[in-house]
Amino acid sequence: MKRHLKWLTIIFVGYFFAAPIYAKNIVNVSISINKIYGINTIDQTYKIDGYLVASWQDTTNPLKPKTGQRIYENQTADTIIGDGNIWFPAFEFINTVGKQQTANKRLIFSSTGEITYNERFQGTFSTEMDFRRFPFDDQNFEIIMEPFSYEKNQLTFGKAHVFLEEPDNKSLSEWEIKGKPQATISEHVYHHLDDAEKTFFSRLKISIKAQRKADYYLWQFILPLSIIVAASWSVFWIKGFPERINTSFTMMLTVVAYTFYTSNILPRLPYTTFIQRMIIMGYLSIFASILIIIFIKVREQGGHKTEHIMRYCRYLFPGFYLFSILILARLDNLL
Amino acid sequence: MKRHLKWLTIIFVGYFFAAPIYAKNIVNVSISINKIYGINTIDQTYKIDGYLVASWQDTTNPLKPKTGQRIYENQTADTIIGDGNIWFPAFEFINTVGKQQTANKRLIFSSTGEITYNERFQGTFSTEMDFRRFPFDDQNFEIIMEPFSYEKNQLTFGKAHVFLEEPDNKSLSEWEIKGKPQATISEHVYHHLDDAEKTFFSRLKISIKAQRKADYYLWQFILPLSIIVAASWSVFWIKGFPERINTSFTMMLTVVAYTFYTSNILPRLPYTTFIQRMIIMGYLSIFASILIIIFIKVREQGGHKTEHIMRYCRYLFPGFYLFSILILARLDNLL
Amino acid sequence: MKRHLKWLTIIFVGYFFAAPIYAKNIVNVSISINKIYGINTIDQTYKIDGYLVASWQDTTNPLKPKTGQRIYENQTADTIIGDGNIWFPAFEFINTVGKQQTANKRLIFSSTGEITYNERFQGTFSTEMDFRRFPFDDQNFEIIMEPFSYEKNQLTFGKAHVFLEEPDNKSLSEWEIKGKPQATISEHVYHHLDDAEKTFFSRLKISIKAQRKADYYLWQFILPLSIIVAASWSVFWIKGFPERINTSFTMMLTVVAYTFYTSNILPRLPYTTFIQRMIIMGYLSIFASILIIIFIKVREQGGHKTEHIMRYCRYLFPGFYLFSILILARLDNLL
Amino acid sequence: MKRHLKWLTIIFVGYFFAAPIYAKNIVNVSISINKIYGINTIDQTYKIDGYLVASWQDTTNPLKPKTGQRIYENQTADTIIGDGNIWFPAFEFINTVGKQQTANKRLIFSSTGEITYNERFQGTFSTEMDFRRFPFDDQNFEIIMEPFSYEKNQLTFGKAHVFLEEPDNKSLSEWEIKGKPQATISEHVYHHLDDAEKTFFSRLKISIKAQRKADYYLWQFILPLSIIVAASWSVFWIKGFPERINTSFTMMLTVVAYTFYTSNILPRLPYTTFIQRMIIMGYLSIFASILIIIFIKVREQGGHKTEHIMRYCRYLFPGFYLFSILILARLDNLL
Amino acid sequence: MKRHLKWLTIIFVGYFFAAPIYAKNIVNVSISINKIYGINTIDQTYKIDGYLVASWQDTTNPLKPKTGQRIYENQTADTIIGDGNIWFPAFEFINTVGKQQTANKRLIFSSTGEITYNERFQGTFSTEMDFRRFPFDDQNFEIIMEPFSYEKNQLTFGKAHVFLEEPDNKSLSEWEIKGKPQATISEHVYHHLDDAEKTFFSRLKISIKAQRKADYYLWQFILPLSIIVAASWSVFWIKGFPERINTSFTMMLTVVAYTFYTSNILPRLPYTTFIQRMIIMGYLSIFASILIIIFIKVREQGGHKTEHIMRYCRYLFPGFYLFSILILARLDNLL
Repeated sequence: MKRHLKWLTIIFVGYFFAAPIYAKNIVNVSISINKIYGINTIDQTYKIDGYLVASWQDTTNPLKPKTGQRIYENQTADTIIGDGNIWFPAFEFINTVGKQQTANKRLIFSSTGEITYNERFQGTFSTEMDFRRFPFDDQNFEIIMEPFSYEKNQLTFGKAHVFLEEPDNKSLSEWEIKGKPQATISEHVYHHLDDAEKTFFSRLKISIKAQRKADYYLWQFILPLSIIVAASWSVFWIKGFPERINTSFTMMLTVVAYTFYTSNILPRLPYTTFIQRMIIMGYLSIFASILIIIFIKVREQGGHKTEHIMRYCRYLFPGFYLFSILILARLDNLL
Repeated sequence: MKRHLKWLTIIFVGYFFAAPIYAKNIVNVSISINKIYGINTIDQTYKIDGYLVASWQDTTNPLKPKTGQRIYENQTADTIIGDGNIWFPAFEFINTVGKQQTANKRLIFSSTGEITYNERFQGTFSTEMDFRRFPFDDQNFEIIMEPFSYEKNQLTFGKAHVFLEEPDNKSLSEWEIKGKPQATISEHVYHHLDDAEKTFFSRLKISIKAQRKADYYLWQFILPLSIIVAASWSVFWIKGFPERINTSFTMMLTVVAYTFYTSNILPRLPYTTFIQRMIIMGYLSIFASILIIIFIKVREQGGHKTEHIMRYCRYLFPGFYLFSILILARLDNLL
Repeated sequence: MKRHLKWLTIIFVGYFFAAPIYAKNIVNVSISINKIYGINTIDQTYKIDGYLVASWQDTTNPLKPKTGQRIYENQTADTIIGDGNIWFPAFEFINTVGKQQTANKRLIFSSTGEITYNERFQGTFSTEMDFRRFPFDDQNFEIIMEPFSYEKNQLTFGKAHVFLEEPDNKSLSEWEIKGKPQATISEHVYHHLDDAEKTFFSRLKISIKAQRKADYYLWQFILPLSIIVAASWSVFWIKGFPERINTSFTMMLTVVAYTFYTSNILPRLPYTTFIQRMIIMGYLSIFASILIIIFIKVREQGGHKTEHIMRYCRYLFPGFYLFSILILARLDNLL
Repeated sequence: MKRHLKWLTIIFVGYFFAAPIYAKNIVNVSISINKIYGINTIDQTYKIDGYLVASWQDTTNPLKPKTGQRIYENQTADTIIGDGNIWFPAFEFINTVGKQQTANKRLIFSSTGEITYNERFQGTFSTEMDFRRFPFDDQNFEIIMEPFSYEKNQLTFGKAHVFLEEPDNKSLSEWEIKGKPQATISEHVYHHLDDAEKTFFSRLKISIKAQRKADYYLWQFILPLSIIVAASWSVFWIKGFPERINTSFTMMLTVVAYTFYTSNILPRLPYTTFIQRMIIMGYLSIFASILIIIFIKVREQGGHKTEHIMRYCRYLFPGFYLFSILILARLDNLL
Repeated sequence: MKRHLKWLTIIFVGYFFAAPIYAKNIVNVSISINKIYGINTIDQTYKIDGYLVASWQDTTNPLKPKTGQRIYENQTADTIIGDGNIWFPAFEFINTVGKQQTANKRLIFSSTGEITYNERFQGTFSTEMDFRRFPFDDQNFEIIMEPFSYEKNQLTFGKAHVFLEEPDNKSLSEWEIKGKPQATISEHVYHHLDDAEKTFFSRLKISIKAQRKADYYLWQFILPLSIIVAASWSVFWIKGFPERINTSFTMMLTVVAYTFYTSNILPRLPYTTFIQRMIIMGYLSIFASILIIIFIKVREQGGHKTEHIMRYCRYLFPGFYLFSILILARLDNLL
């Protein structure tokens, strides 16, 4: 949006530096994260509960106390901001989904001219997640913040800090935080469509790396699925056509039921995850064994001895399945 | 609604051109889309997070700065609009569902008399979707906007722009954007019921074409379903009535279970989608094979030789199924 | 509520006609429906997105322009209403569920003294739905509106109009609108509990008849269910007790699974719908065939020849099932 | 809360009767219920849409009209209440969940000094529900209201009325209202923890008795479950171990599936409902028959004649099951 | 957040004690809990409906009445707080999720200078829950509250009380409150990152211990699961390979289905709960019996006598399963 706002405001840029209130402000920001929760793999969103602190110098503030500092909370702070007598920049989270909730807010005016704004916010954020290695994936939870209206020559982020309460964040029961969260200040360039000009906005990027703890999926998903696929190989030891075909069909339908189950934990991705590949390999393997069972039956009805094929399959199927799982696990590195 | 408002306001139209504040205003608009997400096939809705920029000339603006420009954000902007001292037209999204959320808004007054309004909005929109080719369908995501109160001779949209952040929009993991988004300005005619008169409103239409990436449905749906239908043909190779009938029944119930599964991804449509037709063909095909199996059994109990029918079915069923899928895939072109 | 308000206000009625501001006002209303959607059969509710226009004469309006008309939108309109200088009646939707959302609103004051109020609303409405013939039912979508505070001798609805955008309303994919929507003005009598007195309120009733398109249920529900019931009759052709009993049990459990599925589409009704009756007849029919199969088996174990019963059942069961479906389909006409 | 507020305010009680504005006010209340809906058995909550009317005398009201009465609606009423020039008590619903929505409100000032407050509210209420006899249970829908701040010597409820629109309330499709709704005024005693003193609040209690219409559960639940349990007894007539054990296992798994289904309609109760007891008796009965079948098989393999046990079971199992159902249905009376 | 606010405000601390309005205030707090409900094991949250009372001395209050006390409710109280003429500290719930709702609030000013603030709130809170022993677990429901802006030398909590309405809290149907709820006042230290300095905030911690009533899970979950596992041991008594393998497969798939069911009641934990361990032991046990069955079959086909292994298994499997359940139940004590 900033990109095309430029297109609308370009003629006034010349006036900017004359207006004292728009002189370049340096805003120090700090975000403290209480909790990351509600991680929704279907929508690729997560909720963050935290504090935002922004502080800047404004010696022209008419409400500046003579000594010490004054605190204005909630309704009182709103009145002061609404009156428009102080310069108060709005910030926006770029990668947010919906409007964030503000439980409490305050303004602190100090006698040195510093204004500190502090709010506790709760918002839903989104980032692109890569589920190719799911459930052995790691994701990067981000918050991207920019001033809503002021370009980089009017407002620049100065120092930036990020704090994460309880780094062994228990509420993220499925995730383990990797390393320290990073706060980076950069500038974001908004290119214009039809000309070579650019506008620059100061940008704060918070980045928290986390790795999924796969235990849940191992016990609830991969172990039973592996057992079912392994049980399907029993047909190569069993004698008798009806027992074989019956076992194979039951196993195949069970593996297909797993495709329904995964649709509750992952979005409809244009690629397959590791866990989906395991399932696909599972039902393809069982389908192959059905084809072999029928082939042998038909050959036997025709009087041919083909039972020895079954003995080869006892090694071929497990070997091939394990081999393909290994390949699939590595597939993402190759792509 | 504009249609019948006319019926109420018709007697005052004569006064309109006399009132200077209602002189024809040209409003340039620009919409920048951050994200299209939450595409709900059941409700046929999608959420759009974006920026709306509208700008117009108003030299009579009492708040016009002498030089440069002034920015009013959020509460301050609301106060100015609420005071009613400037002309500020409300816009409405015609195809929206519910009220949109506004995270931040601002008003920019420039010394040249230009007023620029900018907001970040998030709304749910709906459009008619055609799922006949699902999951190989493409849809058209639209935003339709009109002034809420002012007719075309009072307010006309001038230039219109639309921008789509990250054209390879990752958050739309299931969709691929086709071509550039279009912004079209037209006029919408509201006919009156009982007379030949019409009112005209300026209308902005944003249109984004997208194609569904069918990968998910291929792997999770069409492949296992095809395998199950193919497995059901095994009865024509198998000997023995109980094995045949057992296999057929199991397969038919599995295919019927797919009808339950589709009810979670598609609305209750008055037509069938490609995927539903595949399922219907699937269970009809298996039902037909059950009828044949029983027919042969009954004939055999009567002493007739009918086993050769089975051999024909080995080619007939796969052939007929594939043929009908091809026909069904083409059905929409014919209708 | 009006009923007992009367009980509280009865002593002041005598003063009413003296107060000029409460002199009988005639309010013309018009409702334009953009969209009927979110039809929830479980809660028996539907959402309506539309415009409400109300206009009345008020020559004492202090804000009346000298010529032409003035438009006040949103915040500005709210300020004028909140100031209480003009007479502005609140309307309420009687059959609404929750509070409706107002996306935009405006007040138009004309020099002739006419005040026009216009809002775009979105609300959830409820009406009693009769699902006895489901999915071949038709329903009546209603909006009932009354003034919130003013009795009929203070406020009467004058002309009433209703418009339905796109009568072939696509968003109602499951429904087909029947005939033109009706707007009727009547008076609603609120009887008092302990006396013979009554209060009268002017009432606007919008009524839209729609018929469900049953295609979805035919293909997804009735066809597979019929096939399963038909397949269950195969036991009368099959020889051998285990095959028979096995088939019957499998089919019965499948039909029972349908009872779970219907609980997602219909509320817990004190009566049965057509589709439920089909299911109940289905499992009762299969249960009956199990009883016959076991009876025959037991008789045979006792040395009796009872196999011929099976031959009668080949005609008896389909005949009886079809006959009972016909009866059930007609049942509502008789009740 | 009132309990401990006492602990904080106790020292000022002496002043109370001196302050004229706090002189004992008698407030007449009346609640009219439009609709009871959204009955959620899982959360034990229900939604009520209705009107609240409260009226009291206040001859010192500075806005009292000279003749007749004046009506202030919505925003205008809010302004008057917010100004604090009139005495306006807040009421709170004790057993509410969340904040109620107010669609419309009004204040009526009459020349006699009576103030009437009227609002249409929609709230979620909760009451303790006893599901022991489910689905043959009856519940008591309650609204409990008290003044938020004023003790009984400051504010007493006078007359109380309750009205229920359409006593054959169709929106409660699953419920039948029993008798007339009751409005009772009592006082609620808040005991103090550490002293013998008490504070009294005037309390209004609305109580509506309703009985569940069990038809839905009979047709959708109890009938198919009974048929499945009855079908499981067929094993005592069937000959052959595999047929017996197969049938029993299939039936047991089906009954177990019913335990999953009930988890969608009832909360996780510390006691069992009638319907759960039916299911538990069902799978225990089938488990017992499995044990008997295996016992007989094992004995026969040892050369013993035990087939006659099966004949006893033909009468024992149905008899015992029906007897236990009767006992279970009566269990709540005994407890 | 307080941690890094320190970093911003550190230079002004010296001025604090000079400003009279910031002189150390002692605030007595009391929380009365109406209801704990909506306990969500997936999100590890619970909802609390209660009253918050806070009172402090402020003799400089310009609105202090001469005698007695004055009550300001809702809008009137908001106006007073918003005006900023009295010192009114904002409190925040540390472990809340989202913004709490306030149904009613009031301010009481007494002639002695005491100010009492009282609100009914409803909020969602979260705490770390340990589900290792689920469903035999007990949890600790907490509310943690701190002043939003004022450090311990500015605001200290004085006396603290907590009350729980109806200690046999029926709405917590699944939970039984253990002992009396505790209210503890402590100080919370916010360490600074880069220096040795600390800031202190007064902290109120409410703690309610509750034990899950496991009845529901015993009847709906553990009993049927145990029966299914026990039924799976029947294969050691049954003769005949097809019957054995068929029974085992059916039972294994049923136990696997239980893994799907648990995913609806518990979050995706990095550890296994008691109930999950029961299921895992269940399917591992059945898988082991399938391996034994096939091993015996294969050995028999080779002419070996291995049927006696089955007899050992009759005691080995139940013994081992019960033993491992006991171990698993104790596992948490050892870890």
